[in-house]
Amino acid sequence: MSKIEIGKKILSANEKCALQNEDLLTQHGSVCLNMISSPGSGKTTILVKTIIELKNKIKIGVIEGDIQTEIDTEKIRTTKAPAIQINTEGACHLSATQVNRALKELPISDLDLIFIENVGNLVCPSAFALGETDKIVVLSVAEGDDKPAKYPAIFVKSKALLINKIDLLKVPGQIDFDVEKVKRDVFRLNKNIEIFPVSAKTGEGFENWLGWLMNSVKNQRRRS
Amino acid sequence: MSKIEIGKKILSANEKCALQNEDLLTQHGSVCLNMISSPGSGKTTILVKTIIELKNKIKIGVIEGDIQTEIDTEKIRTTKAPAIQINTEGACHLSATQVNRALKELPISDLDLIFIENVGNLVCPSAFALGETDKIVVLSVAEGDDKPAKYPAIFVKSKALLINKIDLLKVPGQIDFDVEKVKRDVFRLNKNIEIFPVSAKTGEGFENWLGWLMNSVKNQRRRS
Repeated sequence: MSKIEIGKKILSANEKCALQNEDLLTQHGSVCLNMISSPGSGKTTILVKTIIELKNKIKIGVIEGDIQTEIDTEKIRTTKAPAIQINTEGACHLSATQVNRALKELPISDLDLIFIENVGNLVCPSAFALGETDKIVVLSVAEGDDKPAKYPAIFVKSKALLINKIDLLKVPGQIDFDVEKVKRDVFRLNKNIEIFPVSAKTGEGFENWLGWLMNSVKNQRRRS
Repeated sequence: MSKIEIGKKILSANEKCALQNEDLLTQHGSVCLNMISSPGSGKTTILVKTIIELKNKIKIGVIEGDIQTEIDTEKIRTTKAPAIQINTEGACHLSATQVNRALKELPISDLDLIFIENVGNLVCPSAFALGETDKIVVLSVAEGDDKPAKYPAIFVKSKALLINKIDLLKVPGQIDFDVEKVKRDVFRLNKNIEIFPVSAKTGEGFENWLGWLMNSVKNQRRRS
């Protein structure tokens, strides 16, 4: 009589490759954050500001995912940070294989922190592991405060939420977005998430976000 | 010797069902517009304003697609227009089968115009036919003017583009969005597209959009 092994998870090709990426990152002691949001929430602008603010403290690299164009990578390279563009040519999310190739092109042993800017899509990227240390979700106040209720998956899976473009809330009557309602809705989905209301344009709220990033890097170094 | 028929397109289950929806709509002489955009571009607000403005001229129904919640359908129902909510429970786009079920719940023989508000996603919904007369894309100025270059597919396939939230352009220094650049980029992808810069909040630009809708309804009546 043969034994049947039960309870063993069958991994997809993507999940297997994600585990390889995870090993590679752990081996080098790098934190890797997979940034997910709708198109136009301000991911690239947040990254440019973050890299400039932290350039004397840690080394940051970026993997840029877009369906087409090198627009975002060109913006990142103005900061002198190493950046690799992936064009998915129609696909709505990055795959672990694409990230694996990009990781090998980055000077990974020199990098403390690697951002993956996923394709602008609040739905599909949340279902595909890339080997990241954590997922980060960005929501712009211009998108409306009902998004956590309508698109819960990514808010459940993320370690941090950046509520971006809060400078738009200063103009009376322009944007209806209740930050406190969003915090309540998001904490109901995920009580351990960190929430940072920020403006990548003015720098408001960046101190807490940057402090959180520095802590993540320190914790990773301690583990490696 | 048997003949082999070549050049015949093999239809997916979704495409077959989309053709059934198309027949159903043609039979009733209804125009059906599949609205596609990122989350938070203002699709529902545009629909509410459009229904109110046209309520004495034509009969409008709405099919609302969301991953979760009935938030949008409740907003549409404040206008007294018939509205059916589809919850995709995680799926990133509506399918023709889901729309078929919703069409059968709507009083379709009374309706001149049916809007399908797809799941908020600028990528995946563009690849799935629903049987619609035309696709319509919405882009909010808060999303940035590089979106047609980065997400070209939906701009290639749409009959009209609404550039929404143009009221935000009135506040100096708040939003960097070049309407003329977007028009140039979009016309390069699709020279026959109609472009309507609008504000669903203030009603600016709505006259041309509503005129275009009324024309679509008249043309469909002529064909039926």
